[in-house]
Amino acid sequence: MIRHDLVQEENGVTVLREVMPGPPPSRLRRWLIGEPLATAKMAEEKVGKIVGLAIFSSDALSSTAYATQEILFVLAVAGAAAFGYTFPISIAIVVLLGIVTLSYEQTIHAYPDGGGAYIVARDNLGELPAKIAAAALLTDYILTVAVSVSSGVAQIISAFQDLFPYRVWLAVGLVTVIMLINLRGVRESGSIFAVPTYFFLFTITLTMVVALYRYFSGALGHVENPPAMEISESVAIVTPFLLLRAFSSGTAALTGVEAISNGVQAFKEPRSRNAGITLLWMAGILGSLFLCISFLAVQIHAVPAETETVISQLARTTFGSYGIPYMAVIIATTVILIMATNTAFNGFPRLGALVAQDGFLPRQLAYLGSRLVFSRGIVLLCLVASLLIIAFQASVNALIPLYAIGVFLSFTLSQAGMAHRWWKIGHLPPGQEVRERGSTLRYEPGWQVRMVINGFGAVCTAIVMCIFAVTKFMYGAWIVLVLIPALVVMFSAIHRHYRNVAARLSLEKYGVPPPVSRHRVILPIGGVHRGTLAALRYARSLSQDVTAVYVSVDAEDAEKVRTKWETWGEGVRLVILDSPYRQMLGPLLDYIERMDTTRQPNEVITVVVPQFVSRNWLAGLLHTQTAWMLRVALTMRPGLVIVDVPYHID
Amino acid sequence: MIRHDLVQEENGVTVLREVMPGPPPSRLRRWLIGEPLATAKMAEEKVGKIVGLAIFSSDALSSTAYATQEILFVLAVAGAAAFGYTFPISIAIVVLLGIVTLSYEQTIHAYPDGGGAYIVARDNLGELPAKIAAAALLTDYILTVAVSVSSGVAQIISAFQDLFPYRVWLAVGLVTVIMLINLRGVRESGSIFAVPTYFFLFTITLTMVVALYRYFSGALGHVENPPAMEISESVAIVTPFLLLRAFSSGTAALTGVEAISNGVQAFKEPRSRNAGITLLWMAGILGSLFLCISFLAVQIHAVPAETETVISQLARTTFGSYGIPYMAVIIATTVILIMATNTAFNGFPRLGALVAQDGFLPRQLAYLGSRLVFSRGIVLLCLVASLLIIAFQASVNALIPLYAIGVFLSFTLSQAGMAHRWWKIGHLPPGQEVRERGSTLRYEPGWQVRMVINGFGAVCTAIVMCIFAVTKFMYGAWIVLVLIPALVVMFSAIHRHYRNVAARLSLEKYGVPPPVSRHRVILPIGGVHRGTLAALRYARSLSQDVTAVYVSVDAEDAEKVRTKWETWGEGVRLVILDSPYRQMLGPLLDYIERMDTTRQPNEVITVVVPQFVSRNWLAGLLHTQTAWMLRVALTMRPGLVIVDVPYHID
Repeated sequence: MIRHDLVQEENGVTVLREVMPGPPPSRLRRWLIGEPLATAKMAEEKVGKIVGLAIFSSDALSSTAYATQEILFVLAVAGAAAFGYTFPISIAIVVLLGIVTLSYEQTIHAYPDGGGAYIVARDNLGELPAKIAAAALLTDYILTVAVSVSSGVAQIISAFQDLFPYRVWLAVGLVTVIMLINLRGVRESGSIFAVPTYFFLFTITLTMVVALYRYFSGALGHVENPPAMEISESVAIVTPFLLLRAFSSGTAALTGVEAISNGVQAFKEPRSRNAGITLLWMAGILGSLFLCISFLAVQIHAVPAETETVISQLARTTFGSYGIPYMAVIIATTVILIMATNTAFNGFPRLGALVAQDGFLPRQLAYLGSRLVFSRGIVLLCLVASLLIIAFQASVNALIPLYAIGVFLSFTLSQAGMAHRWWKIGHLPPGQEVRERGSTLRYEPGWQVRMVINGFGAVCTAIVMCIFAVTKFMYGAWIVLVLIPALVVMFSAIHRHYRNVAARLSLEKYGVPPPVSRHRVILPIGGVHRGTLAALRYARSLSQDVTAVYVSVDAEDAEKVRTKWETWGEGVRLVILDSPYRQMLGPLLDYIERMDTTRQPNEVITVVVPQFVSRNWLAGLLHTQTAWMLRVALTMRPGLVIVDVPYHID
Repeated sequence: MIRHDLVQEENGVTVLREVMPGPPPSRLRRWLIGEPLATAKMAEEKVGKIVGLAIFSSDALSSTAYATQEILFVLAVAGAAAFGYTFPISIAIVVLLGIVTLSYEQTIHAYPDGGGAYIVARDNLGELPAKIAAAALLTDYILTVAVSVSSGVAQIISAFQDLFPYRVWLAVGLVTVIMLINLRGVRESGSIFAVPTYFFLFTITLTMVVALYRYFSGALGHVENPPAMEISESVAIVTPFLLLRAFSSGTAALTGVEAISNGVQAFKEPRSRNAGITLLWMAGILGSLFLCISFLAVQIHAVPAETETVISQLARTTFGSYGIPYMAVIIATTVILIMATNTAFNGFPRLGALVAQDGFLPRQLAYLGSRLVFSRGIVLLCLVASLLIIAFQASVNALIPLYAIGVFLSFTLSQAGMAHRWWKIGHLPPGQEVRERGSTLRYEPGWQVRMVINGFGAVCTAIVMCIFAVTKFMYGAWIVLVLIPALVVMFSAIHRHYRNVAARLSLEKYGVPPPVSRHRVILPIGGVHRGTLAALRYARSLSQDVTAVYVSVDAEDAEKVRTKWETWGEGVRLVILDSPYRQMLGPLLDYIERMDTTRQPNEVITVVVPQFVSRNWLAGLLHTQTAWMLRVALTMRPGLVIVDVPYHID
């Protein structure tokens, strides 16, 4: 396996290249997430449109399971007569979906390396909007996981009530399983997730076809034994504000639409084209399903209720019974709600890696794991979402008000960024190309229309976001409105740190110091034994100027060390520091500090630390760990070099 | 402050001695536990008889608060008529106290460096009984803390019922306060604890004097409105077994008697004499108080009850009201119950240090802290006792069955050991001296009588222990009977580890290896920056044979490093390891392993690790910590030396 690929002799430097795969992973790891994949296999890990749709659309498609219902809940305030507004509102939402889709379709082509709200905002609006977009999206991905899994678990519990006390651990367990599947890599997890997504699509489409056929043949009828609806005594009148609230509640259908634009890189070449077509498919399916459900829900006189979902009412009315087709719809809906999590597991690590590459998040998030996915981001998402689930006790009602603000904030920033991009393109001289970090600008005719579309979309999503923030502020939305600025501040602090480190390490204007011509060696000893002598042997190979230092807290022990040193010390000078207050480290550090003040520029002080090492970590509790504490303390003192001479005792 | 005390040139070795006090402790630490005390002040930290009595007798004296009551509780099974046996039983217990006291008085003189059950058993019975004694005593000290504080808190709560929900934290808080006081050192904590101990002695003695005066003048009378006694319907007859159970319950009065024999070293010289006199005082006070209370309790027709203690009944009958003298007795009793903890805080760390010196517990327990007490043992006791209090929710009823078995087990072992010691002394030729580890044996006439006293005491305490173990087995005593063997096994494992380490480090038959004549240096680099160049400078000062190693996971980055190395690498060979699975550490370790297989005996492979260091530990999260993980991995590989070259970035 080891090949000397290349030996170069260039500018006096010998460069050897070898392929060194490193040790294979443990059996447990291979069983859980599979054999490691070589970087060269990256191209094979790309997905086509079929799998891509399954990976990136489960979040968006799952929202059809509750979007219509959310509209009905708001309209119920004005009585059942107001339900007639459901279909027109749904059409308005689908128009908005169309605008957002068009915008993202253009984004995908403009940003073939992935262009979510973060990149579009970064390239077109500046650093602050980009950081806001990143904070909004990351928050929302975490909430998607928490909300989707909690609502899936809620569905499971309504079937198996005995599981209620275990709901939190059930939810955390599901998140962990989905994390493990995602750690297996994009292609493999895509194949695993394709089955439930297409099963959902199949069952729900079948329901729609049967329902529409029965409707047009006049045989559909109304819901039998509808659940009790909670209507307030004083029926309100239908105001524009009420309609707007119903509209904003229904826009829950749009969450997840941005996922594909973030994941363009995951598609096979030509990736922009494949991703764009997948987006259009997804929007088409989503829009039609949503319209069908809204239309049919009104026709069958479905009722919004906590006890039975609109989908359930629709399915049993369509199939006329609680038989196998009904059960298939319910199971498929439950599974797709849990699968929606997967979209977040794809989006979060990719976005985290992009933000980390720009230095706003820890660099580690940008490293590809053994299966060519950003494993650290996947694990981080699982951890944070699990903590959130534990904190909110897997309660959907408590989590839902936190949700969706982030999505619409990022929609707004993304579309505003695109609008600005069209404006820039419109003002370029024809033929000129401007290279930005994520895309290339080139004059295009018709930029005005595209700018208006994006600008209109930005205004619409901004309004929806504001309505959300106002109407849900007291119910928990304030947490998000505090969290996003906090994240932005954190991004800035991290960025500042990385910039400082880079400046401190930069080789610009670096004056090479004189070579080391003198070593002074300090050898702290805790006794005279084989470990000490191994360190002494090494210390003497570094320099003639070696001083052994012993801190004495007990006169008898010190005398023993002195006598032994006469036999074994090879003539090396011994300093005994009497520590009247029985400190071990303090006197040693003070002594080293004093040595350090007399150091010359060409001189280095090296502290050689003898250390005995046991494979059994429990045994470590039986020793004082002075060597370890000494190393930590010495590392904090500039200008010293620390040498560990380990001596193995097993 | 720094004095070159002594410069010796002996056998060709220069030895310098300096006094180096080390940095002063933090202000918080000084405020909490005081300025550090020099080792030379050890003699001043000794206590006299007055303070010694306060420190070591609070546990024993506090037992007068409940011992009589425990006897009454058992006799109540046979009806109030059986209470007449209380005084004879008390006399038997005081006789036992006398035997135990005599035994320990002899122990104190035989073992002037402290001779608790552990040392006596070690020197006279062997290693296993010694370990059993140590386990029994350590367990019992921990239980003393938990039981005493819990019962003190229970008294506080019966006065302030609102505090009930906070009882666990109140108890843990009290333990922490007592820990802090003990960390201040023997003398200072002794002075603090002397006040409540003497206050208790004063109030309880006053009560006895007044009560006896009123009794003999015929004016004492009976308890008014005695609490309701729970007597079983079918009154049992008085059997010898019942009397034995009453006797064993009453022997709770003996807990704490061994404390002084463990702490002989804490007394001023002549320490054996001072300690022995203090023991006699304590036994005298304890015996008389106990007899008086038992006598008077029967005379006033006191009744055992959960709702009011016998001491309370006695006090209000004596003083005829709930006035100030009554309140003083109640407060003093509560405080002495909490103070009983302090005896354990004196005994546990001392015993822990003795056992640690023999290598049966971690060595750290044998180090004197800044205030000349075994601080680590004090902190350990506080931690374990707090955990126990939390686990048992500060419930005295749940804790009490665990208590006292350990005490009587150690009494038995100690007296059996002393008996064996007299037998050995009796068989020595006159004039000959045998030096044992803790004492010196010399023929003494009259050894037969002393042996019989000790042997009789051992048999008595063994019987009491067995009765305890049998009657309380189901109520929790089994925990102790499992715990003590478990501790003994742990002691043995620790001992084996220390013996192995000592054997591996021993210089016996040690052949000095040839001096290092060749250094091969490996310099792992993650990039080319100031930190790398500092490490390169150091590496080149060690050897001509330096190889820089870079693990490449990204071809572009590798090319950048190669180009930079041509400029800054000072001609040093660069090896680029292509890591197809994007591992960082694995390929590097494999490469070092391969180097290691070609190593000569006189050659050392040194790995120089460049590391940048930030004072802000949070910033550490933003870097990969590869240097740290590399060091841990390398330390586990025998035969390598690891050099840290820190580069400070702030």
